[in-house]
Amino acid sequence: MTSPSDADSERTRLVTLAMRVIERAGENITRAALAKEARMPRARIDAIFDSEDALFDAILEKWYAPDIAIMEEVVASDLPIRRKFYEFFARRFARQRARFRKDPAAFAVYCEVGTDNFENVSGYIDLADHYLAELIAQAQEEGHFAGLGINRALSLINQMVVCYTLPQMLMILVEDKLEEDKLATIIDTLFDGLSGEARGAAPVAGLRIA
Amino acid sequence: MTSPSDADSERTRLVTLAMRVIERAGENITRAALAKEARMPRARIDAIFDSEDALFDAILEKWYAPDIAIMEEVVASDLPIRRKFYEFFARRFARQRARFRKDPAAFAVYCEVGTDNFENVSGYIDLADHYLAELIAQAQEEGHFAGLGINRALSLINQMVVCYTLPQMLMILVEDKLEEDKLATIIDTLFDGLSGEARGAAPVAGLRIA
Repeated sequence: MTSPSDADSERTRLVTLAMRVIERAGENITRAALAKEARMPRARIDAIFDSEDALFDAILEKWYAPDIAIMEEVVASDLPIRRKFYEFFARRFARQRARFRKDPAAFAVYCEVGTDNFENVSGYIDLADHYLAELIAQAQEEGHFAGLGINRALSLINQMVVCYTLPQMLMILVEDKLEEDKLATIIDTLFDGLSGEARGAAPVAGLRIA
Repeated sequence: MTSPSDADSERTRLVTLAMRVIERAGENITRAALAKEARMPRARIDAIFDSEDALFDAILEKWYAPDIAIMEEVVASDLPIRRKFYEFFARRFARQRARFRKDPAAFAVYCEVGTDNFENVSGYIDLADHYLAELIAQAQEEGHFAGLGINRALSLINQMVVCYTLPQMLMILVEDKLEEDKLATIIDTLFDGLSGEARGAAPVAGLRIA
């Protein structure tokens, strides 16, 4: 019999192996391919990952675990709210950039696999939104982002910091244009400028451009 | 002999044909393929487009011409500066979204071809930056974006509105999250919040998160 902790470590070992194969092959891995790589019977793999989705979810879990730890730590911290916002984005950005710099080709593969399996990834995006909504609620209690519903503020903030959250940006943009001190300026801009009040940018109905 | 205006219309006709082929084939077109499509001698095509790059540049010129017209019109208008900023981004976004909605597959092809030929595209990005720098200078004369150099302001603003400028965003994000009234809020946020002054988001040296 395999003890629970042996099963855990075998699962962890297989996920690590699967990620190495993904990075090498440049595409997602099936349970059949994993069995072959691990030189294990397919039935054993299937007992650990009861579907292709379960294997992919285990890979995602490992990929996102440090990000979740960052978000939980920042939300629970007693930093001032602006500092929380900055750390919430900056730490995950720094981690993402380190991964990208370490192996740009492997990073590109994960972006592609993630895009192809968006259903599986979306739970993690929802979780990040959940934590950000907590921070927004706290900021609103302190008088920021006036006149905006939480979901509206969430969408606007996500759009304004997307360069520092969306992994693809490290590949689309010139990576060295993304800098922590720009992110800090963007966070300060949000805190001092974001509200629900219309202040002149939007067109006034009935007026047309000269 | 071919008169200059005949040559112009033949060139225009060939560029239109080349774009149809790109959309259909899902990849960039060579002069050889264009000659075949147009049932014209290769030498005639080469006389009009003296390199593969020249053909691609002619396609880009047609793709970007309406955007350039929008930027020139907005910069030259007598709208208040906030309205100028909004129109500068909103009109090009609306045009891009219309292209995307009309034919998402063809739009994806242009994004890919553009990425693969970034050298050719970069001149247009520089041109958009040039016009935006003019608007930033005008805003700064009116007291906005204090304490920021033009290039710094340009980079920060480009990052904060990237959802509405980068074509890939229409494919990466759920397209209906992008709305003109959110863009207007982002512009108002920039005008009321963007400055070079550090206001608490950035970490203070020597302090660590609790």
